[in-house]
Amino acid sequence: MSGTSQVPMRQQVEEFVNNLQEEIVLAFEKLDPNAPQFKRDSWVRAEGGMGRSCVFASPIDDGATVSSSAPQSILEKAGVNVSVVHGVLPPPAIRQMRADHTSMPLPDSPDGLPFFAAGISLVVHPRNPHCPTVHANYRYFEITEPKRDDAEPGDQQPKVLAWWFGGGSDLTPSYLYEEDAVHFHSTIQKACDKHGPQLYPTFKKWCDEYFFIPHRKESRGIGGLFFDDLNEGTHLRLPNPEVPRPRTPSEIFAFIQDLGKAFVPSYIPILELRHAQPYTPHERRWQLLRRGRYVEFNLVYDRGTKFGLMTPGARIESILMSLPEIARWEYMSDLGEEGTEEGKLLAVLRETRNWV
Amino acid sequence: MSGTSQVPMRQQVEEFVNNLQEEIVLAFEKLDPNAPQFKRDSWVRAEGGMGRSCVFASPIDDGATVSSSAPQSILEKAGVNVSVVHGVLPPPAIRQMRADHTSMPLPDSPDGLPFFAAGISLVVHPRNPHCPTVHANYRYFEITEPKRDDAEPGDQQPKVLAWWFGGGSDLTPSYLYEEDAVHFHSTIQKACDKHGPQLYPTFKKWCDEYFFIPHRKESRGIGGLFFDDLNEGTHLRLPNPEVPRPRTPSEIFAFIQDLGKAFVPSYIPILELRHAQPYTPHERRWQLLRRGRYVEFNLVYDRGTKFGLMTPGARIESILMSLPEIARWEYMSDLGEEGTEEGKLLAVLRETRNWV
Repeated sequence: MSGTSQVPMRQQVEEFVNNLQEEIVLAFEKLDPNAPQFKRDSWVRAEGGMGRSCVFASPIDDGATVSSSAPQSILEKAGVNVSVVHGVLPPPAIRQMRADHTSMPLPDSPDGLPFFAAGISLVVHPRNPHCPTVHANYRYFEITEPKRDDAEPGDQQPKVLAWWFGGGSDLTPSYLYEEDAVHFHSTIQKACDKHGPQLYPTFKKWCDEYFFIPHRKESRGIGGLFFDDLNEGTHLRLPNPEVPRPRTPSEIFAFIQDLGKAFVPSYIPILELRHAQPYTPHERRWQLLRRGRYVEFNLVYDRGTKFGLMTPGARIESILMSLPEIARWEYMSDLGEEGTEEGKLLAVLRETRNWV
Repeated sequence: MSGTSQVPMRQQVEEFVNNLQEEIVLAFEKLDPNAPQFKRDSWVRAEGGMGRSCVFASPIDDGATVSSSAPQSILEKAGVNVSVVHGVLPPPAIRQMRADHTSMPLPDSPDGLPFFAAGISLVVHPRNPHCPTVHANYRYFEITEPKRDDAEPGDQQPKVLAWWFGGGSDLTPSYLYEEDAVHFHSTIQKACDKHGPQLYPTFKKWCDEYFFIPHRKESRGIGGLFFDDLNEGTHLRLPNPEVPRPRTPSEIFAFIQDLGKAFVPSYIPILELRHAQPYTPHERRWQLLRRGRYVEFNLVYDRGTKFGLMTPGARIESILMSLPEIARWEYMSDLGEEGTEEGKLLAVLRETRNWV
């Protein structure tokens, strides 16, 4: 698992996610220099590991603290999280993991199995209803043999039983601007295509399937990429061994790095274009209704959120950082009728489209 | 299953929930005669049955429609739903039901089993942060033998294999007024005590257990009553056969009717007392954060909501009617410190208390 480098992959990924976090946060801060900075917040996990949350929150309008005529920030709420954790997966978690990652042969172990996980996860909710919400996540996971009781310091690292990369990035607009969707998708397609022509179409389709809200019969947004279980073994969604794709640890890591680098150019230009566009209370109301749907997806279906909420010792504030500052629910809302701008968005959420 | 009356219980419950819905909606409309009326909305379920939603929504403040100086309604969002549905439970739903209702011996049936369900369900979110949110639900469920192929019109009704009543009522304040909690609990205790002294303490405890948010390590609110599986058989939470409690269908129905009648006196006086109390933007902010927790409970844990979202053909708008108009999430909020009014609420949510 050391790839072509002598540095263990764990360490390479940790450095990568830390640098990417800094790069992304600085890009947002440069975009809106008059807004408050992201709040950097390091934490330690009692069970093993640590992380850093970088969070943007609108100044609180409690009447006293902020005058309502103060200029408004481009972002409303955003979080860019890094976590590097390790510990022991208890048997029920191994069983859950086996169900979620069917291509990964994981042995049963009455004492559980040691794991290592490093990742970056971000959600950005801009204030202007013409600016889309964005989500991205890149992660590396390792499961190793249980430590031998007679192991001594300086002994070799325990054998890696399974490892994989996962991740993706997707866009959730309140109002559809086709050119923004095309820009977002073509930027990540370009990053994918260097590593194999099947990656973008395969993972774009997976994204459409994953971010679907069954009870609403609509997608959360206009998609992007979603993938998991990427390693040197057979991949259920890329079964053809002839198809060029990253296979070795260092090839897959290079792919992940290119996707990480594509985040800023895929999204920041959209914010630059839209953030100063005038908007009405009606458009704000529709945005808050869409944020309600975002909450529904994340709390009811999102695998990472559900896994996190069930994990003892998980850092709830970091897991639920993805939720918007404000969300709205109306009974039988009259918004979204055919022929309106709101209806135009619903149409693409009900029937996924190819953007490139 | 006809009790002492010749009218089938199905029909008696249907009449009861319809009348209770009307009584409750009229009580809210009388409290705030200048507010818009509840919107009455009947619907038919394609798979069998019907219902009526009575929903209150704040007038939309789209800038154009309402001047911001218009007087504000006491309620912000409320729904009082009745549904009377029937159909066939598919085998997976029977298995789920068997797991949720362990005291109910349900046979396996490859073609599923006919069911009938009638209930009233309400959630009221007032606007003023000093007014608590309230929830109540009363329901009757029947499972019958599959219809015989040679059955003819006019044949006897199919045999009832299982039946039970369930329900409850609970209060979710943003700010703690002990006298309101005492009033709410003592009103429902009085309704319970007529039917047996163990009912209130047993179902109060069940309520505290049910409305708990594990990932927040706090209760949704200050409790009330919660019960299920109430029929003539042994009850897991009331196992002692000596303890007086309602057992026959008509005894249990009388208990449910008394609880239903207790709703208006348990809650409306609290609204009368609090709705005109002045409040600050700070208090409104805290209320919206608490509504975020309400959303978390309902979407992640609530059995009825989860069951509803998974049920094909379910009426999503009625199921999610329980969600507040607006909810808020802050990362690492500074509200709720010890020694503040917000902290005082959190203390009782973290350690349940006896109110009577």
